[in-house]
Parts: sequence; C-alpha cells; structure tokens
Amino acid sequence: MLVVMKNDATKEQVQAVIEEIEKMGFRGIPMPGAERTAVCIVGNKGPVDDYHLLMLEGVKEAIPVTKPFKLVSKETKPEPTVISLGDIKIGAGEVVVMAGPCAVESEKQCLTIAQSVKKSGAKIFRGGAFKPRTSPYSFQGLGEDGLKILAKVREETGLLIVTEATDNASIDLVEQYADIIQIGARNMQNYFLLRRAGQASKPILLKRGLAATIDELLMSAEYIMSEGNPRIILCERGIRTFTNTTRNTLDLSAIPSIKELSHLPIIVDPSHAAGRREFVIPLSKAAVAVGADGLIVEVHNDPAHALSDGAQSLYLDQFAQLMQEIKPYRI
Amino acid sequence: MLVVMKNDATKEQVQAVIEEIEKMGFRGIPMPGAERTAVCIVGNKGPVDDYHLLMLEGVKEAIPVTKPFKLVSKETKPEPTVISLGDIKIGAGEVVVMAGPCAVESEKQCLTIAQSVKKSGAKIFRGGAFKPRTSPYSFQGLGEDGLKILAKVREETGLLIVTEATDNASIDLVEQYADIIQIGARNMQNYFLLRRAGQASKPILLKRGLAATIDELLMSAEYIMSEGNPRIILCERGIRTFTNTTRNTLDLSAIPSIKELSHLPIIVDPSHAAGRREFVIPLSKAAVAVGADGLIVEVHNDPAHALSDGAQSLYLDQFAQLMQEIKPYRI
Amino acid sequence: MLVVMKNDATKEQVQAVIEEIEKMGFRGIPMPGAERTAVCIVGNKGPVDDYHLLMLEGVKEAIPVTKPFKLVSKETKPEPTVISLGDIKIGAGEVVVMAGPCAVESEKQCLTIAQSVKKSGAKIFRGGAFKPRTSPYSFQGLGEDGLKILAKVREETGLLIVTEATDNASIDLVEQYADIIQIGARNMQNYFLLRRAGQASKPILLKRGLAATIDELLMSAEYIMSEGNPRIILCERGIRTFTNTTRNTLDLSAIPSIKELSHLPIIVDPSHAAGRREFVIPLSKAAVAVGADGLIVEVHNDPAHALSDGAQSLYLDQFAQLMQEIKPYRI
Amino acid sequence: MLVVMKNDATKEQVQAVIEEIEKMGFRGIPMPGAERTAVCIVGNKGPVDDYHLLMLEGVKEAIPVTKPFKLVSKETKPEPTVISLGDIKIGAGEVVVMAGPCAVESEKQCLTIAQSVKKSGAKIFRGGAFKPRTSPYSFQGLGEDGLKILAKVREETGLLIVTEATDNASIDLVEQYADIIQIGARNMQNYFLLRRAGQASKPILLKRGLAATIDELLMSAEYIMSEGNPRIILCERGIRTFTNTTRNTLDLSAIPSIKELSHLPIIVDPSHAAGRREFVIPLSKAAVAVGADGLIVEVHNDPAHALSDGAQSLYLDQFAQLMQEIKPYRI
Repeated sequence: MLVVMKNDATKEQVQAVIEEIEKMGFRGIPMPGAERTAVCIVGNKGPVDDYHLLMLEGVKEAIPVTKPFKLVSKETKPEPTVISLGDIKIGAGEVVVMAGPCAVESEKQCLTIAQSVKKSGAKIFRGGAFKPRTSPYSFQGLGEDGLKILAKVREETGLLIVTEATDNASIDLVEQYADIIQIGARNMQNYFLLRRAGQASKPILLKRGLAATIDELLMSAEYIMSEGNPRIILCERGIRTFTNTTRNTLDLSAIPSIKELSHLPIIVDPSHAAGRREFVIPLSKAAVAVGADGLIVEVHNDPAHALSDGAQSLYLDQFAQLMQEIKPYRI
Repeated sequence: MLVVMKNDATKEQVQAVIEEIEKMGFRGIPMPGAERTAVCIVGNKGPVDDYHLLMLEGVKEAIPVTKPFKLVSKETKPEPTVISLGDIKIGAGEVVVMAGPCAVESEKQCLTIAQSVKKSGAKIFRGGAFKPRTSPYSFQGLGEDGLKILAKVREETGLLIVTEATDNASIDLVEQYADIIQIGARNMQNYFLLRRAGQASKPILLKRGLAATIDELLMSAEYIMSEGNPRIILCERGIRTFTNTTRNTLDLSAIPSIKELSHLPIIVDPSHAAGRREFVIPLSKAAVAVGADGLIVEVHNDPAHALSDGAQSLYLDQFAQLMQEIKPYRI
Repeated sequence: MLVVMKNDATKEQVQAVIEEIEKMGFRGIPMPGAERTAVCIVGNKGPVDDYHLLMLEGVKEAIPVTKPFKLVSKETKPEPTVISLGDIKIGAGEVVVMAGPCAVESEKQCLTIAQSVKKSGAKIFRGGAFKPRTSPYSFQGLGEDGLKILAKVREETGLLIVTEATDNASIDLVEQYADIIQIGARNMQNYFLLRRAGQASKPILLKRGLAATIDELLMSAEYIMSEGNPRIILCERGIRTFTNTTRNTLDLSAIPSIKELSHLPIIVDPSHAAGRREFVIPLSKAAVAVGADGLIVEVHNDPAHALSDGAQSLYLDQFAQLMQEIKPYRI
Repeated sequence: MLVVMKNDATKEQVQAVIEEIEKMGFRGIPMPGAERTAVCIVGNKGPVDDYHLLMLEGVKEAIPVTKPFKLVSKETKPEPTVISLGDIKIGAGEVVVMAGPCAVESEKQCLTIAQSVKKSGAKIFRGGAFKPRTSPYSFQGLGEDGLKILAKVREETGLLIVTEATDNASIDLVEQYADIIQIGARNMQNYFLLRRAGQASKPILLKRGLAATIDELLMSAEYIMSEGNPRIILCERGIRTFTNTTRNTLDLSAIPSIKELSHLPIIVDPSHAAGRREFVIPLSKAAVAVGADGLIVEVHNDPAHALSDGAQSLYLDQFAQLMQEIKPYRI
C-alpha cells in the first residue's frame, strides 16, 4: 500500500500519516518525489484498511501495490532515481563508465591504469580489494591495504572509487574508503549483507546473480532500500545458460525490463558476462544502445598477467577505443 | 582439410585437385573467394594425407580444419559473404531491415503493411504463408494463396519477399514465389529440409533453434552449403532460459561469436525473442550496435487482431520510429 | 470441448453427435474408453455452444477442455493408454526395456547384441538405420539395408524392432520394417513428420526435444493423435541446461508431470541424457523408481568402436547387470 | 599436491611433513584415512617441488591433484566419508531421512509433526528458525525462540535437529542448539559463512545453489573443509532451468557425479525441487534408487496453513506412505 500525499502537503501531514500507519502495527516510509511525497506501508502481508488514512489531511490517494517489491517500484516512484556523486550523475541520461582491474595488485599498477582510463573518459575507478573466489586457495585480495591504494588513486586522479564488500566485516572497511560499495553476484541473496548495505552511507552497486530473475534482483534491492538506503545502482552481468561461446549470456533485455518496473538506474558489466576480450567492445555498444545508464569494464595495463577471475581485461588502448566507439550511441 | 590454390591458379588446376580428391575416396568442393579459390575436402573423418595434393600444380597450401564445420568457416573463407538481391546487399555493412506481419492474412492487410514499412525504410517484406504451430488446431497459414499475395506485394511495392518453408512440400512452392526462403527455429535440425534448402535456387534465412549452440547453428548451415547453396543468412531469435520478463533471451553475444567463426551474415529477430512490443525498439538498437547485418521485425496495421504466435507486432508508426531510432547506430 | 456419452450410448448416438459437430463447422473425433465413449471437438478456437449437443440422445455431459491439448489429455481419457504389441504391453505396469546399438552397423553386430540383450531380458531391439547427425559429414546410417538387418534380427530372436524415421521419405520405409517408429528429439516439432506419423499403422515413440516443455511435448503428441494414430509412447531423454558433468540433464520430474496430464505411457532414455556409461545404471534405477513405463538403452558388443553420436553404449555384461539391478524397483 | 604416508607412518613423521610444507611457505593439512594418512598441501598455486618431501621418512608418494578441489576429492581420500551422530550414520549405506516443517511456527506444531515423523521412521527433525526470504517483508523466522523449540523437540522425541544458519550471527546460535548446521542454496557461495562453518563443531549440510555446477558445489565444500571441519553432507535440491511443471529441475545425475568425484555423502531435497506435493514421493523413490545417502522432506500437520517458501509440505500420513514406498529401494 502506498499513500500518496497532495502536492502541497506539509511535513506535519506526512508525519501524521506515518504515525497513523504505526498505530496500525506497520511501518511507514516517506518517499519524497519531485513533485509530491508518498508514504510506503511495509510490514503488512495482506490488504490494509485505508479508511482512516484517506481521511487524514494532505492525503490524495491510497494505491495498493501489486508487485512483491514496493520501494524500488515505478508504481511507488515513477520518476527515475538519479545517484549524484560530486558532479557525476548516474541515471540522468549520461552513460557513466567505471573501469579498472579485476583486483588491486599494487599502487603502481592501479595508478598506471587509473591515469589511462581517466584520460580515455572513465569517471569511476574499479578494483577489488576483497575478492570472492570459488577456490579457498585462490588470491583473496589485499584487503585494507588494497583499499588504501584505491584511496590513493582517488587522491591522485580525482576518479571516484567502486569496490566490492564480500561480507559484514569487509563492508565496514569498504564503506570507509569507497565512493560506491559493490555487492557481487554471488552475494545478491546474502540478506544479512544486503541489510547492512541498507544502513550504509554510500550508494550500493548491486549485481544480478547468475540465476536470478528480474523480480529477485529487485527484491534484493528492496532489502537494501527498506533499511533506509535509496541510492542503489543495479548491474546486469550475464546469466548462466547452455551457451558456450561466452562465459555467461549477457541478458540485455534486462535493461528495458528493469526500466519498466523500477526507478533505479542500471549499468552493464560486459567483461564478466563475455569472459572474452574481443566481445567487450561490441557488447558495450549494445548495452549503451539498449539504454544502460553506465558500464563497468575490466581494464589492465598487462592483461596477460592480471589476477583475474574469469573475465579478460581490456588493454589500455582497447579501452580508449571502446570509449571512442560508444560515443555515437550515448544519445 | 582445405586445399588453397594460388592466386593465379587456372580452372583446370582446380579441377585436377578435385579429381585427385575423388580418387582418394572423398569429395572436393570448390570455394571461390575474392582473390583465390580453395577446395574443401569433405567425407573424410580422420586426417588426410596431403602429400599428393601439394604436388599438384596451382596448389599453394593445405590447411587442416579444426572446427567441425568447414564450408561456413572463416578458416575456409576469411572474407565476409555478401548476399546480393537486386541492389540489396546483406552482409556488406548496411543494416537491411525485413518487416511485415507474422502471418499473411489477406491481400489488403499485406499491402497496407507493405506500403507503410517500405515508406519507413524496410527493403524486404516478411509474412508467413505456411506457419509451424505448436497446436494442430491453430491456424496453419493460407498456403499457396498466401504466397500469391506475397508475390502481389512484391509486384506492387518492389519489396522483396522472405517467407518460411516448413517442409519438403512447402519449400517447392516457397522457392517458386519468394526471394529468400526462411527455415524456422524448430526446423533448424530438420536435416532433410536443410539438404533440400541446399539445392534451392534462392538464399536461405536460417534461424537459430531455441536450445542450439553456435556450433550447432553453423553445422546446420554447413548442411545447406555442402549441398551447393552458399547463400545463407543466419538469424539470432532468442534462446530458452529461466528468465520470465521476456519470452526468450536474446543472445546478442551470438553476433560477435558468429562473426569470429564464420563468413556468413547474421541478422536479429527482436520480435520473437522479446515477445513484448515495448522491447522491440531498444533490442533493435542493441542488435545494430553489436554488429548485426540486419533485422527482421513483426509489424501489423492492427496488432491487437493479428494472427500471431507469441511475438507482439509493432504498430505501423512504431516501426517508423524504430527506423528513425536505429539510424545513429547504422555506421 | 469434450462430449461425454452415457455408458449405454449406442454407436448411432455417437455418430449423431459427430454429425451435429460437423454441422457446427468443427470436427468430432470419437475416443472410446473402457466404460464409455467421449467425442472430442477439434477445430474450434473459442468456446462452443453446447446447447444442441446436450439435447442429443445418449449425451451425458459436455466438458470444456482447459489445456491446449485435448486428445492426449487425461481430462479426455482418464484411464492410461496401453500399447499392445504381441504379448508386450507398454503402459500396463511392467517396465519394458528396449536395448541395442546407436546405429545398425552390420548383421553380425546386431545379432550378437540382440541375442545378448534378449537373454538379459530386453523385449525390444533398438538400432538406427537413418541417423540424424549434427554434421553433414558424419555417418548417416545404412538406410534400407539397415532396416533389412533389423528385420533379420526380429526373425532370428523374436525381439520387436524400434528404429528412427528422420523424414517423410524414411518413414515410409521404417513403417514397413519396424514395430515402433521413433521420432527423435530434433524432430519433435517437425510437424510435417508428426502428421505423417499420425497416419502410420505402427505405434510412435516420440522423444522430448532438448528445450521442450512438457506442454510442447504433449502438443506434438496431439499432432500425431489428431491424425488418427492413438498409439504413442513418450520418451524423456534429457534437457539442455548449464550442467557439465552430464551431456544433458535427465528431467525425471517429467514422468510424474506427464502422468498427471496425459494418459500416454512414457519411457526414459538414460544413455543419451547422461552421455556417460557409468551413470546409465543408477539413472535407469531412478527412472524405474519414479514410475517410467520402460527404458531405452544403448548397448554394444564393442562400445569403444561403436558408431555413436554422444551417448556411451553399455557393454553387454553391464546391460545384464542393469536388468538385475532394476528388478527390485519394477513393482 | 597430496603427500601420501606409508601405512605404518608415525604421528611424528606426519608432523615432520607438515613442518617441511610450512617451510616451503604453504600449509599442510593431515587427512587421516582408514589405512593411511595423507597430507594435503594448500596455498600453492603452481606446481610444488616434491623433492624434499619424498626424502622424508614415512612418505610413500606425492600425488599432484588435478581437480581444483583437494580435500573433498576422492583422489585425496578414496573411501566414503561417514558422518556419525549418535547411532545415526550418514554415508554408510543406510538412507537417513530428515523431515519436518519449513519454518518453526510453535512448540505445539513442532512436537505434533516430530512425533509423527519419528513414528514413520525419520531420524532427524528439520525446521527453520532463521529463514532467508526473497522479500524483506516476509516472515523471517522465530530466531533463538525457534531454536529453543527445536531443542525441546530433541529432548521430547530423541530426534536430532538440523536447521539453517543464514549468516555469521545466526550460525553462533545454531551451532549451540542444532546437531547439523544447514547452509542454504542462496548462501552456497557466501564464503564468509562457509569459512565460519569450517570452524564449527557440528556437521554442515551444504545445499547446492540454483545455478551451481558440481565443481562449484565441491569448491564450496572445500572452503568448509579447508578450515578444519571435515563433516560435510551435500544436498541436491534442484537447479533452475526453463521447465515449468516443477519449481526447479531435480538433477539426480548430480548424485553419481558427486559419488565419482568426492568422498562426501549427498542427500536429496525433493520438496524444494518439485514445489509440488504430488511429486515428492516419486522423486524420493528415484533419489533413493539413484544412490542418495538420505532425504530431507518438508512435512506439516496442516500444510494448507504452513508458513512455507515455495515447497509444498507433505501431510503427516503422506510422509508415512513415503517411508513405506522407499523401503524396497533402500538396498
């Protein structure tokens, strides 16, 4: 249930609605929009009797929400969410590109890559300090030392930082150092981590799980948002199918699907989906053409020796070419 | 095994190579390229002793072919195949758009749609006269009457005609009336029909099966080509996965995958993949951006009453908009 | 729509119902059951006005059929269909085992295998004379010579014969020689072949396509049955998924799914699903335990040199062991 | 690399090998087997120079391990692992059945179900106190109160308890109350939780993720085992495919696949795979026939009002019937 306030409703009237909802045993979360505020009722399982709510001052209407997700839904908030970070705006029409290595290996490596991708037009630097790895015997990342290197990269280049938090210990550190906290595909339904992300002070980049439906991805975003963090960027990174010329199948239909259901921005990770260096540029062009709000791309100064987990990094000059080639599509 | 002839090899030298191959108990198929001819050895299962072949005049080299497909392979013929139909060239860089209704319903319906899509920029008219239907009780198409309507459309509008042949009876008729013969997804491994298509005088549009790998699609094209018809256009139309916001999952990675392995052109059918009218335009833009040689789109003057089998047709003005929106990507 | 006749309805009353249906512009197909006859209305798309039908003598009730398939549906015919071939009954509780090589290679090979599998308890001999192969360059079967060898096997051993028809040319020959005509997974939606199978005088073994839903499999059976051949045996042979320890994923849930929806018997092909010799016995036991009416298993006297297309044949003694091991489950 | 000790090697000799491995910069984990001990080297990425190791006393041989997993591998430990809990042995041939409701709802509900399933032959009681739910607004379990109810069930009935831990907070509590700690499908690659499970004093029931390959499931078990907990029970519970007559596709081939690769026991959850009450008994029979070491089944005294997340619970008498029907297959 969504209680939509009139355009001229006062703060006090919104507060009165929230209190009335609490009296009913539920929770009311205010959702300020461009023109008017709505109050979302959570905690109810069945229908809510809206009689008392409609009688409160400033209330325009009460809308039953039919989808299992509420806060992330377009029914709740029709206008697109824009995530502002300094002068970068994700979800506002511009295609924001995040680029960098799979793993933070050393300061020198990161600075080399960062300076190059910045020159090519990237706005945000990616690099893993905590790496979720299939094998317990694989390199698991530099940890906080890696985060310090990322902070250095920001200081030196002005690029913002996105990096993955893999659990409730690492998210405390990542929140401290990064500008955007990434939740990886394998943790998309790690509800404990999602709730913690919902209490974070930074935007969340939430990757779609390998076998997750669009509804499940949005329900995971709902977990984050229901804890109070509305700054969520979704990410399509390929689903698991029977195909074998790529590592996963990039599901570009996910972009219009999500745009239809949710107000959240969505970006595309062509590197992990393809697992093939040669396919990153054409898939990036397709992602921009289909309406993605951004890209996250693996780039390395020495891809042959990169510590990677399945994606193949672009060479620095290939990334420069990518930024050239997507230009005509960024309209 | 592929026997590559020198650039200046004569017709007689090529013929001598073919005869030598036949003496070895195999078959030699000449593959004329832009600069030189190659002779493909088929019928061998294990390695071929190339000693005698290399000693023949005009022979440059003998290349073992590692992929299961030969004739459709880029190893065999590195330059892209261009299918010329009048002044239309498929595979030459231009994005060729085929448009029309799912099924031929009446002359009036077809002419209305054809005149509109022609004005919007389509070059080829699509429409089914023989419809493969999941249910034996569904409308199975107008048959030859439908083909006559398609011929009328060509006469009146100048648009070329692509239509599906569903079996060895209908292909005789389709070959007579159409400019391109379509083999549908459900018949992708109907080898009898593929062989017949390989003997046809018209180009073949071969759709990828719902669960077909790229290798299997190329092997099916190999069936057609090994019978002597090199004019094949491949078509990606979505694969079957667990997703549920679209009817199938459009696998746009298939386009660079095929471009890497084969010289054949490939087009995309966003209508059947999506099953959703709203997604046809964004997926068409993505298809063009990723490098497809063309599109095949369902369009109807009255989509709500279209005889369709799962795809949702675009309205005439939506198709006009599609042609506008893909313009910047057709570079 | 299904018109159910009273238990004591006469032949003439049934005929009168069929004629009334034809006057309405549809077709009426009589479905004799153990206790009473039903008449199935086909050719209608929307609801049928049952007013006149209910007034005819001998009519008990008219049941709207909600599933897209009718003749194969349990709604139409609740009691299980039993396919009788001599004293073999498929679908009557006994687990009928079909065994033999992938391809007919020679008379000696077939007789060796046949005598062995007969001794172990198989009732039906399988072997391909027409082989649908992914590659046009692979062995495509011995054709009619292979069928003659199969006839010889029947003559010598008394085993019945099941073999695949791949197209409308080979089905004429297969119908002449075999006891059961197999339609392979790749032809499950080859509607031309299905219609021809519906006119055949022999039972049909219809294999599920790699990406076919249960509804689609039943619709394909409906094609056969709507042409007049009610003797259909379904076969689960694995579906295509992301797994990689087996060739395909054997979907044993398909057996209870089909038993719930249809009256047709269903058998299981563990050899093609697994693609692994070691898994054939455990999967056979599971298939029998889940309720399959039979098995079709690849067996060869010299598996290492078998002409096969992906399944791994059992050794003769492994098949004897399989027959022992499934005994406790055949209850 | 696996260092296999002679049958009569002393504890001191094993210790000396471990110390030598540590000098090389790696970690040595002793794996006591029925006849001899092996020491597994972890932490190495490339080949290890085994020269020094082979010269140590008591060392029989050094085996390079080719699979990405080591400790869980049959190469490392050929004999099956048996998990002993009181007089229950999982992996020793007997089919151990775990049964109970999806969620712990109340003491009365749990005791009613527990007494009934015990009478029918279940040895272990299942019931969720911490529920991972797709929606943040769904019932998330009774938490520690639920665990106390489970402890009461054990006290009253003598049944052992298995229940899920969803994160590093709940695992502390679950470890305290339960006999077996369940890690759910959505947490199969929650490495933080896996590591914590590896430090637990109780056996772990590790469920396969919806899109996990067999290798990935075993790698997750490797995480647990590399932390020191060798008592792991794997569980197949269905994978996500295109099928639609069941909630997921139960992949029974997983059982022989895992038996081939690993020494760990594996059980089957037919309830979550099928999502259909009617299919639980046939799939249970198939699971036992294919070689599963146990079953975990949802049972409820009032299934229509059960708090469930997609599986359909059996009625108490249906579970009694299941235990009867699997009897002939438990050989």
